[in-house]
Amino acid sequence: MSHSTIIHRRDLEFQLFELFEAEVLTQRPRFAEHNRETFSAALDIAHAIAEEKFAPHNRLSDEHEPQFDGERVSMLPEIREAVRAYSEAGLIAAGKDYDVGGMQLPALVSHACHSLFKSANIATSSYVGLTIGNANVIDRFGTPAQKRKYLQALLEGRFFGTMALTEPQAGSSLADLTTRAVPNPDGTYSITGNKIFISGGDHELSDNIVHLVLARIPGAPPGVKGISLFTVPKYHVNDDGTLGERNDVALAGLIHKMGWRGTTSTMLSFGERGACIGEIVGEPHRGLAYMFQMMNEARIGVGMGATMLGYRGYLASLQYARERRQGRPPEEKRPDVPQVPLIEHTDVRRMLLAQKAYVEGGYALCLYAARLVDDLRTAGDETARAEAGLMLDLLTPVVKSWPSQWCLEANSLAIQIHGGYGYTREYPVEQFYRDNRLNLIHEGTHGVQGLDLLGRKVTLHDGRAIGLLAREIDRTVREALETPALAEEAHALAQAWHEMGETLAVLRPALAERATLVLAQANAFLEAFGHTVVAWLWLRQGLTACRALPNATDDDIKFYRGKLQTCQWFFRCELPKMQPHHALLRRLDDTTLNMAPDWF
Amino acid sequence: MSHSTIIHRRDLEFQLFELFEAEVLTQRPRFAEHNRETFSAALDIAHAIAEEKFAPHNRLSDEHEPQFDGERVSMLPEIREAVRAYSEAGLIAAGKDYDVGGMQLPALVSHACHSLFKSANIATSSYVGLTIGNANVIDRFGTPAQKRKYLQALLEGRFFGTMALTEPQAGSSLADLTTRAVPNPDGTYSITGNKIFISGGDHELSDNIVHLVLARIPGAPPGVKGISLFTVPKYHVNDDGTLGERNDVALAGLIHKMGWRGTTSTMLSFGERGACIGEIVGEPHRGLAYMFQMMNEARIGVGMGATMLGYRGYLASLQYARERRQGRPPEEKRPDVPQVPLIEHTDVRRMLLAQKAYVEGGYALCLYAARLVDDLRTAGDETARAEAGLMLDLLTPVVKSWPSQWCLEANSLAIQIHGGYGYTREYPVEQFYRDNRLNLIHEGTHGVQGLDLLGRKVTLHDGRAIGLLAREIDRTVREALETPALAEEAHALAQAWHEMGETLAVLRPALAERATLVLAQANAFLEAFGHTVVAWLWLRQGLTACRALPNATDDDIKFYRGKLQTCQWFFRCELPKMQPHHALLRRLDDTTLNMAPDWF
Repeated sequence: MSHSTIIHRRDLEFQLFELFEAEVLTQRPRFAEHNRETFSAALDIAHAIAEEKFAPHNRLSDEHEPQFDGERVSMLPEIREAVRAYSEAGLIAAGKDYDVGGMQLPALVSHACHSLFKSANIATSSYVGLTIGNANVIDRFGTPAQKRKYLQALLEGRFFGTMALTEPQAGSSLADLTTRAVPNPDGTYSITGNKIFISGGDHELSDNIVHLVLARIPGAPPGVKGISLFTVPKYHVNDDGTLGERNDVALAGLIHKMGWRGTTSTMLSFGERGACIGEIVGEPHRGLAYMFQMMNEARIGVGMGATMLGYRGYLASLQYARERRQGRPPEEKRPDVPQVPLIEHTDVRRMLLAQKAYVEGGYALCLYAARLVDDLRTAGDETARAEAGLMLDLLTPVVKSWPSQWCLEANSLAIQIHGGYGYTREYPVEQFYRDNRLNLIHEGTHGVQGLDLLGRKVTLHDGRAIGLLAREIDRTVREALETPALAEEAHALAQAWHEMGETLAVLRPALAERATLVLAQANAFLEAFGHTVVAWLWLRQGLTACRALPNATDDDIKFYRGKLQTCQWFFRCELPKMQPHHALLRRLDDTTLNMAPDWF
Repeated sequence: MSHSTIIHRRDLEFQLFELFEAEVLTQRPRFAEHNRETFSAALDIAHAIAEEKFAPHNRLSDEHEPQFDGERVSMLPEIREAVRAYSEAGLIAAGKDYDVGGMQLPALVSHACHSLFKSANIATSSYVGLTIGNANVIDRFGTPAQKRKYLQALLEGRFFGTMALTEPQAGSSLADLTTRAVPNPDGTYSITGNKIFISGGDHELSDNIVHLVLARIPGAPPGVKGISLFTVPKYHVNDDGTLGERNDVALAGLIHKMGWRGTTSTMLSFGERGACIGEIVGEPHRGLAYMFQMMNEARIGVGMGATMLGYRGYLASLQYARERRQGRPPEEKRPDVPQVPLIEHTDVRRMLLAQKAYVEGGYALCLYAARLVDDLRTAGDETARAEAGLMLDLLTPVVKSWPSQWCLEANSLAIQIHGGYGYTREYPVEQFYRDNRLNLIHEGTHGVQGLDLLGRKVTLHDGRAIGLLAREIDRTVREALETPALAEEAHALAQAWHEMGETLAVLRPALAERATLVLAQANAFLEAFGHTVVAWLWLRQGLTACRALPNATDDDIKFYRGKLQTCQWFFRCELPKMQPHHALLRRLDDTTLNMAPDWF
């Protein structure tokens, strides 16, 4: 699979085993039965299924969207085959305990496995991705009875899951949810309300669908503190595990998106006939807290999806740039010498370098976040676990938003390298661009991520999370300063972090007094912070490459040189773009705030 | 039409009559019969037809692409109705002489008229847009006989036209065209070859289609110096103007694009049966020069198209942001007060301001270029005409590329303001985004524009063109310095132009010695130069608003304040983004150049 179109496998191995040292995790009791070979075997299985079952129908399912005839949703049979192969390989339970049939893989490795499916076919992968998220919530917060009813079936792929949060009148404003859950004498709840943009909300891919629904119990406090969480199955499940009657959940319609077309995006009506029954998960009024405890991983999933769409486009344009001959270099004045491959043109190389920097940087970011999930769960001492949790909280808005922004830009560059062909549906890159545009929106819009980062995360625990990041960055800077080839980058990162400190020194006190003014620039802060974090991870990639180079041979030498050159590119051509952001932020500029709505 | 969805008419009037002083043009003999009323009447007609005949089927023609059954191309009847209304209103000949049935409108006004159709329906507008470009070439370079045959029919919309340049094996590298034109004894040529991406290359919208085809005569020099230009009609035209037999031009297939779907994008085969007859335009081997003499206006057309797609998305998202209520400001902690309109959120306002800055800045840029076309053709003295030509040559790559980049970004922001809805085909903004992605590619890719600007235009006539721009910028700076409200912006523009001078002082000598190294950063230069030019035009808009404010009333006060605030935003939030570009350019950074192709 050395010429895979869905991943540069050498890069994946580099990131997993060299950069993030996956093997070190096997020293922990939970992963004691694993070793590099078992990790690689899991990746090989995922890679093969992704290539053989997911990638081939990616364009086809874009062209043939799911159809709803008023009764049932029909879709390409290839989608069912693919998710079945995925389930049968045990991948839904990849991170789960052996005793529920799981592989007990670290999050680092299971996210790497899932990344291959996102690259191969983001739309088809979302059915199983949502099921994993759903199963995680039930596993963590469900009662033993709920787990018996749903968990095993979800992990085996017999049932699929959804997250039913959004409502038409509320959008991002979850405080304004109005779906009602009225308690019944038997302890169940009657659910009434409408949800929108529910991915995987209806289909025939599984025997049953388990919706996780946010709703209000009458008398609940207003706002986000009055929201509870419910399981609402499409078909009721009998005590013996067999399916009972259809629950009162109706597909009100399919939504037609610009991309991501193979995933049913649905409007769901709960309780139109007054007969929708759900069960509460955990305690009343704590539903949003439960959902948000799972949000870190969901947002890693979005960042990873954005990254892999970018990655796939990068590989497609790289291959095209190597094969397509067109034009001549500027210094070549003879019109009759043969045309050169596109990759010989420096502007094409710039677009390839930018893509490589964005997608491999985004990959490192998402895998680092997955590594933090492992530390949060399985690090040896409590301090390390707590610190990993803080760091993950801090970085989650970056993990979600940075790849959504920059790997979308990568997809645009992949189109550009293809010229006119790239804009046609006869080539794959235009679809990646359309698919990727969603990632700036779902699971919390870009704007929401900025508010989360600047409004909450940087001040979290009196800035302790920021302090942890500072410690990590400082460590990397010191290591790089001892490596002559990376001294320039080490200084640049130290300087960028210093800038960040100066900016925060202005923003933090101002946040307390003039929150609206400061948060008007949350987007600039999100960008500046994100680029700094990714620069740090690029320097770590550079360091890892530098250390490996002396003993490398053949293709590995080229691979490591490519990493070092891309690291240099990110520091010289990308990171400096954030200087004007810092200047703007420190000025507490009020131009946006003072633009009156009726001046537009 | 105060609530038009295709244009902010007040802004159009501002740009035409206040900023670019269209009425001054009526002092020139060619436009002596015009006045503000006749200009407005033309705009009113264009506006009405665009709203009534073009806008309504914009989504429909995206959903129902033209179909080719092997014989004929079929498409929505609405397209034919629209282009017919356009032709019947005399708009194809809007800029032409009275004696050929034209309106003799200045380019400034005719481009403004056409802009409304681009906003309403870019795909349908392209059939008439291409016909205008085609007619201009024949008008300027054709023989009297060719004009008799084609020109009047084109201007009346009985014939439509194409530009058939691109070939599958050559793409942007026009030097590598291989289509052959073999002279026949009767003075005609037999054409053989394949063209690709020919917009409007086949359809049933007009009685005939006149292709302008680039081809090589046997024995011609290699490269771009051996290319000639030919008229190749779909149907031969008899001496009495009636249609003769079908020429040997075949539609080899339709291309399916991401957007712009209502325009047939075709692969054409010329001379498959050995019977394709064309006539040469002008002299042999000068075909590319003829095409390029028309290129400035074609590229204004692309920039204008990009601008108007951005403009339409901006207006849609502005309306949505005013009507849709969602969430509360950060300082509002009570969850039970009503939700506020989206426009109250500062991050939404930032996205609206950015869009306004991009689309109104792009509009000013394109209309300024049209104004230069007028000066080039009708300015009173020769020096003024020559200077306008130089300035237009210099700015053309900016006019083509800046709106393609930034108004596409505007379209992305318009989606973002709509949240999940914006990503669906149930709302209009996703189509604008897909449509606009083409503009970075056709009529010379973004990369080609960068090479043109840095590699040719800034050194044109020993930098005389740059000198003219410097003079204009200096004039605006001095005027703004006398206007206290704009002193900050005046200083910022002076500083930005100073930076540009410093950068050019490094790049110009380096270009002579190390062209490949310098041109590797052509993209950064294009961005920095473009933002500086648009900043200058924003300052001119600010000045115009400042002068008008003291006597303004009611809505005009808000309008001018909006202009001033957006001018301030561009100078504070956008222009500074170019500082890192200058630093990178002056370093003559070699990172991209030194990235070996096999390191990827």
